Amino acid sequence: MNRFAWKGQIYHTNEKRELKIFENSWVLCENGICKGVFGELPEDWKDAELTDFGDKIIIPGFSDLHVHAAQYSYIGTGMDEELLGWLEKYAFPEEAAFFDLEYAKKAYSCFVRDLRKSATTRASIFASKHVPATELLMEMLDKTGLKTYVGKVNMDRNCPDYIREESAEISGNDTEKWVSETIDKFENTKPILTPRFTPTCSDEVMAKLGEIQKKYGVAMQSHLSENQGEIAWVKELCPDTEFYGEAYDKFGLFGGENCPTIMAHCVYSSDEELELIEKRGVWICLCPQSNMNVATGIAPARKYLEKGLKIGLGSDLAGGSTLSIFRAITDSVVASKLRWRLVDQNLKPLSVAEAFYMATRGGGSFFGKTGAFEEGFEMDAVVIDDSALYTPKKLSMHDRFERLCYLYTDSKIVAKCVAGKMINLE
Amino acid sequence: MNRFAWKGQIYHTNEKRELKIFENSWVLCENGICKGVFGELPEDWKDAELTDFGDKIIIPGFSDLHVHAAQYSYIGTGMDEELLGWLEKYAFPEEAAFFDLEYAKKAYSCFVRDLRKSATTRASIFASKHVPATELLMEMLDKTGLKTYVGKVNMDRNCPDYIREESAEISGNDTEKWVSETIDKFENTKPILTPRFTPTCSDEVMAKLGEIQKKYGVAMQSHLSENQGEIAWVKELCPDTEFYGEAYDKFGLFGGENCPTIMAHCVYSSDEELELIEKRGVWICLCPQSNMNVATGIAPARKYLEKGLKIGLGSDLAGGSTLSIFRAITDSVVASKLRWRLVDQNLKPLSVAEAFYMATRGGGSFFGKTGAFEEGFEMDAVVIDDSALYTPKKLSMHDRFERLCYLYTDSKIVAKCVAGKMINLE
Repeated sequence: MNRFAWKGQIYHTNEKRELKIFENSWVLCENGICKGVFGELPEDWKDAELTDFGDKIIIPGFSDLHVHAAQYSYIGTGMDEELLGWLEKYAFPEEAAFFDLEYAKKAYSCFVRDLRKSATTRASIFASKHVPATELLMEMLDKTGLKTYVGKVNMDRNCPDYIREESAEISGNDTEKWVSETIDKFENTKPILTPRFTPTCSDEVMAKLGEIQKKYGVAMQSHLSENQGEIAWVKELCPDTEFYGEAYDKFGLFGGENCPTIMAHCVYSSDEELELIEKRGVWICLCPQSNMNVATGIAPARKYLEKGLKIGLGSDLAGGSTLSIFRAITDSVVASKLRWRLVDQNLKPLSVAEAFYMATRGGGSFFGKTGAFEEGFEMDAVVIDDSALYTPKKLSMHDRFERLCYLYTDSKIVAKCVAGKMINLE
Repeated sequence: MNRFAWKGQIYHTNEKRELKIFENSWVLCENGICKGVFGELPEDWKDAELTDFGDKIIIPGFSDLHVHAAQYSYIGTGMDEELLGWLEKYAFPEEAAFFDLEYAKKAYSCFVRDLRKSATTRASIFASKHVPATELLMEMLDKTGLKTYVGKVNMDRNCPDYIREESAEISGNDTEKWVSETIDKFENTKPILTPRFTPTCSDEVMAKLGEIQKKYGVAMQSHLSENQGEIAWVKELCPDTEFYGEAYDKFGLFGGENCPTIMAHCVYSSDEELELIEKRGVWICLCPQSNMNVATGIAPARKYLEKGLKIGLGSDLAGGSTLSIFRAITDSVVASKLRWRLVDQNLKPLSVAEAFYMATRGGGSFFGKTGAFEEGFEMDAVVIDDSALYTPKKLSMHDRFERLCYLYTDSKIVAKCVAGKMINLE
């Protein structure tokens, strides 16, 4: 039996999306599972492996529900471009480079290293269309100990020749071969079906992905209702659908009990679409930094929270320009404030606690019971030294936490575990 | 004669707000004044003090036109509060603490150290209402070598007792004494008149400040048209004015040849107000991060640029949560994108070059000829090592610059000079 306990200044959220603060407390882990938080170490835990982190902060690890690993090499560039120019000048040429395994190794090494050293413990990741590079990324990620899903991207239409898959058949067959080869290969990393989005995937590919989904019970991720032009385009491409989400659903690729699904963005989801999202239990992934950088707009996060939808946050590199989910937390607060001011005063801004909830419990639920320090949750924890954020002002515990979210780059992660296993931070 | 030349990857903007890039070039400085940028070192400069910074980036220093030094201690906290709650729970109690010189010394030390080590070379700063603490801040800033204006804040009405000045007379007399004592005291730091904003300053105080302005020829800074509630309030308080700016102008505190003036925010300035801003040559200071955090809205920056108004950027701590003007640059781009998407598609988003222009040349012009590497400009330069931003992708010089703006926290400032004098970065 493996038991350890960490002492520090502990923060997490409860089911009601409230910030819970445990000053100078112990969080307990037995065989990878959290046993709760205690002000005093229970008597029968004195012989566990004990670490007192003193004044350091302990939070659940973040889940990044939407990130393009093959776009990491150009984060923070091309931001003056409009979406089409950005895809053609930046996204597609860079992704095409992952045909070359040597390049893929160099580029993915940076991504994997920085993800490993971040406060993120779980992630659902887009690779590129290339199977060998995708498998390489999976191998590299598996070794980190982070829990991840990785998707080989499908795209057989409506994109430049040099990045398009040669045919629907090849796209489908490559995907099935890749899924069958990787589904039981890794301890920490699993394949996830990843049609780029409806406009780049023919019905034939989608039908094949639907078959693969049923056959292997594999999870699914894609983009949904990111901007109005895209929604109109999908309507044209799929005249038999009432709303965008149906273009996935009609192939069995939109949630349901056996198809855990993440849909990124949902900035402009209609009420009908939201109804189906709720019915199918689809996870909505908000990507506030990307939505602001790409000027798509602002998703009505409060509406989704109040409807009780499943909702997490994504860095969405390279629409977003940082891997840090702290930035996604504060950007989702800021975005909600601007939406309140400029669009709809009925939806009051998010609090930092609500955004933290999405980053931990909300997104974490995609991976099982994770994202909080409650008994029975998998133990994902990040220990942070925020002492460089010195201030002569006496801060409340709440303010100290909020400041960490806003000023995270000046803090330092000193320990991190995923499902109770330590992650190398070197 | 003091002459030095720095070699590196040099970026600045021209008058047309275009990014100009000089690869492997030399920037020359003689007696604190820039002598231009050259691809090859001129023959007669071989005996100057030469430093080859290799692949490092050299940019003009930033000007921060609006920052509350007395709010630095609580940056990144209180962001869930609405404006009134934020002022009452955070801003006012913290500023009141600067009555205590010991506390002021501790708090201002952090601010001054971090400003010194940042990419900012010039700043116009709000202190608090307290003269001794304001003079202390001036002394500390003067020693850094940065060129700064510092304002003792006036506030004799419409604020809690514990932070309000006892009377208009005391407010005015304190201010005159402080101006007369400090106007010639420091080499690098000058006093600037700083009525907090019209709602907190009685007519009597404003009239007195107008007199002091005329008598001493001192510069002026305040807030203007940050939100609609404030504008309506000023209209009530000053029924004889047509628009907010007139409430300063009627006391001779709104620009003009002998009263260089910065007005922070101008989110909702009317056309009449903009006309007077233009006529009086008032500098507009945009504070995008603060405007987003405080949910005031988004200023129409492109409109101001196209009208040819004088315009710079401000960190506006603690409405903003970072001193970094890189963040102000990218936030002004992001804000302009959201304004374009959500408010007015006639004003196209800002480019990173345009935002960089505002941060350097635009704001720099408040301090004289500074903010570019043109002949005759004061030599403010910052040398940045961006090598930690490794990417396997071959970036263009433009993309490398843009990435620095978005990912600045992972870069390192290795040298900095103001008017040709080196700044200690330890």
